[in-house]
Amino acid sequence: MINIMVRLEQHFIFCKFILVAIKMPPTLVSVDLKKSAENQPIPMHNRWHPSIPPVARVRVGEPFRMECMDWTGGQIKNNDSTDDIENVDLAKVHVLSGPIYVEGAEPNDLLVVDFLDIGTFPQMEWGYTGIFPTTNGGGFLTDLYPKAAKAIWDFEGRHATSRHIPGVRLSALMHPGIIGCAPSMELLNEWNKRESKLVAKESITVPPRALLPEKIRALVGTLKGSEAVSVAREAARTIPPREHGGNCDIKNLTIGSRVYLPVYVPGANLSVGDLHFCQGDGEISFCGAIEMAGYIDLKLSLIKNGVIKYKQTNAMFAPSASRLTYGPHLVFEGISVDETGRQYYLDANVAYRQATLNAIEYLKTQGYTGEQAYLLLSAAPVEGHLNSLVDVPNSCCTLSLPLEIFDRDISPKVDVTE
Amino acid sequence: MINIMVRLEQHFIFCKFILVAIKMPPTLVSVDLKKSAENQPIPMHNRWHPSIPPVARVRVGEPFRMECMDWTGGQIKNNDSTDDIENVDLAKVHVLSGPIYVEGAEPNDLLVVDFLDIGTFPQMEWGYTGIFPTTNGGGFLTDLYPKAAKAIWDFEGRHATSRHIPGVRLSALMHPGIIGCAPSMELLNEWNKRESKLVAKESITVPPRALLPEKIRALVGTLKGSEAVSVAREAARTIPPREHGGNCDIKNLTIGSRVYLPVYVPGANLSVGDLHFCQGDGEISFCGAIEMAGYIDLKLSLIKNGVIKYKQTNAMFAPSASRLTYGPHLVFEGISVDETGRQYYLDANVAYRQATLNAIEYLKTQGYTGEQAYLLLSAAPVEGHLNSLVDVPNSCCTLSLPLEIFDRDISPKVDVTE
Amino acid sequence: MINIMVRLEQHFIFCKFILVAIKMPPTLVSVDLKKSAENQPIPMHNRWHPSIPPVARVRVGEPFRMECMDWTGGQIKNNDSTDDIENVDLAKVHVLSGPIYVEGAEPNDLLVVDFLDIGTFPQMEWGYTGIFPTTNGGGFLTDLYPKAAKAIWDFEGRHATSRHIPGVRLSALMHPGIIGCAPSMELLNEWNKRESKLVAKESITVPPRALLPEKIRALVGTLKGSEAVSVAREAARTIPPREHGGNCDIKNLTIGSRVYLPVYVPGANLSVGDLHFCQGDGEISFCGAIEMAGYIDLKLSLIKNGVIKYKQTNAMFAPSASRLTYGPHLVFEGISVDETGRQYYLDANVAYRQATLNAIEYLKTQGYTGEQAYLLLSAAPVEGHLNSLVDVPNSCCTLSLPLEIFDRDISPKVDVTE
Amino acid sequence: MINIMVRLEQHFIFCKFILVAIKMPPTLVSVDLKKSAENQPIPMHNRWHPSIPPVARVRVGEPFRMECMDWTGGQIKNNDSTDDIENVDLAKVHVLSGPIYVEGAEPNDLLVVDFLDIGTFPQMEWGYTGIFPTTNGGGFLTDLYPKAAKAIWDFEGRHATSRHIPGVRLSALMHPGIIGCAPSMELLNEWNKRESKLVAKESITVPPRALLPEKIRALVGTLKGSEAVSVAREAARTIPPREHGGNCDIKNLTIGSRVYLPVYVPGANLSVGDLHFCQGDGEISFCGAIEMAGYIDLKLSLIKNGVIKYKQTNAMFAPSASRLTYGPHLVFEGISVDETGRQYYLDANVAYRQATLNAIEYLKTQGYTGEQAYLLLSAAPVEGHLNSLVDVPNSCCTLSLPLEIFDRDISPKVDVTE
Repeated sequence: MINIMVRLEQHFIFCKFILVAIKMPPTLVSVDLKKSAENQPIPMHNRWHPSIPPVARVRVGEPFRMECMDWTGGQIKNNDSTDDIENVDLAKVHVLSGPIYVEGAEPNDLLVVDFLDIGTFPQMEWGYTGIFPTTNGGGFLTDLYPKAAKAIWDFEGRHATSRHIPGVRLSALMHPGIIGCAPSMELLNEWNKRESKLVAKESITVPPRALLPEKIRALVGTLKGSEAVSVAREAARTIPPREHGGNCDIKNLTIGSRVYLPVYVPGANLSVGDLHFCQGDGEISFCGAIEMAGYIDLKLSLIKNGVIKYKQTNAMFAPSASRLTYGPHLVFEGISVDETGRQYYLDANVAYRQATLNAIEYLKTQGYTGEQAYLLLSAAPVEGHLNSLVDVPNSCCTLSLPLEIFDRDISPKVDVTE
Repeated sequence: MINIMVRLEQHFIFCKFILVAIKMPPTLVSVDLKKSAENQPIPMHNRWHPSIPPVARVRVGEPFRMECMDWTGGQIKNNDSTDDIENVDLAKVHVLSGPIYVEGAEPNDLLVVDFLDIGTFPQMEWGYTGIFPTTNGGGFLTDLYPKAAKAIWDFEGRHATSRHIPGVRLSALMHPGIIGCAPSMELLNEWNKRESKLVAKESITVPPRALLPEKIRALVGTLKGSEAVSVAREAARTIPPREHGGNCDIKNLTIGSRVYLPVYVPGANLSVGDLHFCQGDGEISFCGAIEMAGYIDLKLSLIKNGVIKYKQTNAMFAPSASRLTYGPHLVFEGISVDETGRQYYLDANVAYRQATLNAIEYLKTQGYTGEQAYLLLSAAPVEGHLNSLVDVPNSCCTLSLPLEIFDRDISPKVDVTE
Repeated sequence: MINIMVRLEQHFIFCKFILVAIKMPPTLVSVDLKKSAENQPIPMHNRWHPSIPPVARVRVGEPFRMECMDWTGGQIKNNDSTDDIENVDLAKVHVLSGPIYVEGAEPNDLLVVDFLDIGTFPQMEWGYTGIFPTTNGGGFLTDLYPKAAKAIWDFEGRHATSRHIPGVRLSALMHPGIIGCAPSMELLNEWNKRESKLVAKESITVPPRALLPEKIRALVGTLKGSEAVSVAREAARTIPPREHGGNCDIKNLTIGSRVYLPVYVPGANLSVGDLHFCQGDGEISFCGAIEMAGYIDLKLSLIKNGVIKYKQTNAMFAPSASRLTYGPHLVFEGISVDETGRQYYLDANVAYRQATLNAIEYLKTQGYTGEQAYLLLSAAPVEGHLNSLVDVPNSCCTLSLPLEIFDRDISPKVDVTE
Repeated sequence: MINIMVRLEQHFIFCKFILVAIKMPPTLVSVDLKKSAENQPIPMHNRWHPSIPPVARVRVGEPFRMECMDWTGGQIKNNDSTDDIENVDLAKVHVLSGPIYVEGAEPNDLLVVDFLDIGTFPQMEWGYTGIFPTTNGGGFLTDLYPKAAKAIWDFEGRHATSRHIPGVRLSALMHPGIIGCAPSMELLNEWNKRESKLVAKESITVPPRALLPEKIRALVGTLKGSEAVSVAREAARTIPPREHGGNCDIKNLTIGSRVYLPVYVPGANLSVGDLHFCQGDGEISFCGAIEMAGYIDLKLSLIKNGVIKYKQTNAMFAPSASRLTYGPHLVFEGISVDETGRQYYLDANVAYRQATLNAIEYLKTQGYTGEQAYLLLSAAPVEGHLNSLVDVPNSCCTLSLPLEIFDRDISPKVDVTE
């Protein structure tokens, strides 16, 4: 703590002309929303690689702020056209802030990350949810909804409404879609190897089975020249969640949560980005959260050798005591039989897909189009549960829809009671 | 109401010497726990078929009680041997109570079922969770835990402890594993057809891909002789959840819930059984809930033509306002890469399996064996979420473990904070 | 139904010869609802005194059941007349079960009581809420509602509706209005002394300031003859909550709660009664909960010398993890100025009274009479908060009304939004 | 860290030339924390009077921001001395922002206020809780804690810790202590009349019974000269909550809440201030919340003639779906007998005071001083309930303490379980 004091004091000296003591949290990464991802004052990165250099250092116990662009780096605009969604350059995603070097962090430690706050920028009080076209990203229901669609959400403080999905108001459930430490070279090689195998197994698919390293559009932080090219060539894409956390898209990683992240390289090299205003379990339309730019305030601590001590090779977390507590819900069930009647074996994806389709059909009886319903189930805080996974041949999954988000009662009306 | 009144009146007449007016709810199905499933006073059934005759009639608005055997019909004993689990006769399951004929219910209606109460019998204040051996049922982790195991849970009112899993106390979250209306002949044929195809596609597997109609051990209610044989031959097994609900094993169908069930035959022919004292999402060890005998009190209403009106071909429900509200949780993440490093494509089953294995590894650092942890994650009210399903090639699923069920603090201990 | 009766009878007969393992909980006190409080097989008591003899002994760790009459001992009937309310004999209340001698419990221990279960009797699936007339008990708003009124609640499992308050359905929130250990003679003397002083200070009031020992109608358990008379003469009435707990009427003492009770006499002499199906904070109409007969299952443990160790002279408790989690609420504020405009000094009673009156006025705009609203606010699980107590001269208290108990939307309708 | 500072500096410099599109919400009142309450760019007010002129106008449906000083206008400093608390000038409080003229609002309308967001200023990431000395304000326990004390809380995003109360961490529960519309002249006269009567009834008391109009230190917005003096002479103090809402200090008025405020003058003249980071029910130490400066974002709508339509003369509200959901609690009971054994008649203030004292005694066994415990129970989100109010002569009130705010387990330890 003495260090911080000294530093703050110096700050007071240097900033006399500013007069205001901006105590905390210091902003380690700031972004300029008027500039592209490639031209940020502090270089961004959109790949995972142990050689992407840290842009700042922190000590455990010192709160700090990370500003983040939206995941596409500003490609999506606040308008009613879907051209930007249709033509989004996915090679550019996800634009991440960091890495941050954590003093004292060593491989096999668990980096403990407390989410102190998350917020939006006054310059950009809006976000978006998109359906990507099948030919450019797709989504959970891309065979049924192959065309691009977009909903803009206007933020009013910690609430959002959309002119594209009337009659709905969402409370904020802000969280980072992505947080994780840089992989070691060994882990990175493993990622590339296993994902390459998957792609190799199948002929070319749309959407693809996996996104392998792609040097085009790669941002690798402050690296330049041949070093940058070399890193870009082998760096992992940020699309999938992996054992380090990464793009886990867990809506419950809200303000007040504590995340435990495995460390793979000295200093941990923590990155964060892809902030969401809200999201449903599954993030089904792919660009499915309410995507936003904003900031996240973090504080770190460590469990030395925690990966070994607790035998955890994946990220884990403790949710916040501050929660959304919507009352009435309507819950849709789905089983491992698809809409054509084809039987699958305990396939939870098919089951949740059916629950989703049932919810969409219901919402269509309440005046929404299929696209609106699909976007809404992506963005609203629906709960997706794996209810039963062992009752051959069907799994049962459910989608739980909070009814308080609607400005009217959409629950089923009983008509024979005696 | 008249029927009940008449019945009550008669009751008053015949029971003058008893004097007490036992008002409600009338018990439509009672069970005798000292007798086997085959010898119950009111015949049970363990198959789905439209021709299984109703054992009672109700009107909408009239509360009634259904008593239920445990799902195996009493095959599992309160002792420390796993012989009963190992040798369980799965051809006998699930022992169901009903069907109940609902006056006025017609195909395409939604039968609205309110769960008024669920409880245990004073004669059987215990339940069980089992790991079935691979050769007889298996489970979600059967490749890792191929041998039989059993935990007996002792009930103390609405709480349960197990001498086989020390240090844990669970609050009741009673619910029926199975509830649903009888299929029409047409729907039954569809089930049999699609499930047969699945079995046919693969060589013989252990456990099997699906369980096709099996006349051995079939209980088809009051049917006898050739009619019984004929029905047993084509009746569907009760293992999987299907569009009618059935064995959905949803832990949130607790007291106070309202379920909407599609009706396929005149009178609906509602059946219920497989009561659980508690269960985790996934019911992962197959015999994974705290299985129990007990009663459930129901009240019915109808949405005429509701299947069409709300475009719902699957069961749906509204959860209760009475809930378990455990505070602190520890949440384990899993992705679509199995423990050997094999990469799958967006496979939620693999992802949840990994979350489960991570939780088991964690619990092993807290003094539990793998079997104990597996049983606990099956029976305790863990939440299994489908967090992200579109980030190729990995899905992210989580298992959320409530920490208040333990009699000590098992959360990770941070050791470097500044 | 007939069958059941016969079967139960047979069961009782056959049980003589059968070793049925009815494991738990043993019933330490059973009641016969067809008999008056004075004629129960196990004598009841309606006074607090250290000399009332225990009716049973338990060891810590052993679950047991206590059956309870309703608090009046059966004086109120399931009909539409208010005569019984008007003429209730309050000298007879509260009819309590016990005392129970706890082995090992000594003065200054804290007796730790876990509430394992609470339930109703099938013979009496109804309860009542009453407004007592000013001349016989009164209530929080007795000056405005001086006449007797009654609402009968019909139980359907763990839910209640009333033909006297249409459009409302309550989920069970069962709890004992009274639980506590017998006072020592020293403590009893203190009670009598301080309450006598209060009565002496004022001329005769209606309702009275306090209810002093009253030998008429006193039930003192198994005591007889002169000993009974002597004890009745000095035993404390059960109306008020006191430091031992007693008639605390805390709606949150539900199934799963743990209560810590100071022990004053060797063996603790624990008594319980006055079961409620549900209640609002304040229990404002005096007979304000949904009063019921039923059973409560308990398990005990001890903190030796806990009164000293934790410096607690009053009962304390830890609420259950199973809770009612109603979503939307409408909250009414009240301040320390009464409806005539008179200013009080930080008087929370006046403030809550005003919040109550505001809620009643609101409910009158929704079609309820004042009496119905008063009864409803007594019986429904409203929350009464002491929000601010230091802002001279007004306190602010609130009454929070859950809106999901109504079968229609009663929230205020906004009419100018832009 | 120095790097960051430099970067911030550069940012400030560059920003001078950039047209940043700060879309929303427009800030209707901004404050300058380096200036006193008397010298703010937009005049503040610390009295209620219909003639205090609006500082801005809004239309319903248009979100806007109000910045607020802390309630004392900056009198309390971030240091370890209690001098500022001891000498606070209470004639200066509460410093309020507004009034805001709402177009279309007329007397007897209900002004519907949605709380879109509440937050702190980066320049002042701290707050305070104080015990005022008996001679200057006092508090709920001023007879036991007559001396000044202070706890500074450091904010880390939406969490607070205090170097003066170690081992505790609070999640944000931000809310305005004060919100309300200006009284009509008629209502103001009523306030003054009734409060004067109260003061007149008693000889001079410390603390006083009520605070009558006080022209010294009065801030009456933009009014000047004789008009200002005249208004100051009759304007009501802001200390008490009143029917318009005002200083209601309700901790549940958090982000996402909707408040319904009676309108008394054309344009409503809405004021807000006294922001709290967190507070316990009762705000017992008077300066008992975590007092802070910050902003609140609001959106308005109207219910025309709502005061008549819903018969509401007091403010009412609907709480947010975003809530603190702490799990385990320890609940302390109190009755209407004070610590000297004196018996009161159904006095909820005495009962809650006893619950508070019991909680303090408990916390003293856990290593806290009485002052620390008193401050903590004021600032932490404890729940204060009016549990029973009709059981003569004792009321029962409870204080519910969330245990997750402590960094260790402080719950009672059972030592005899079998």
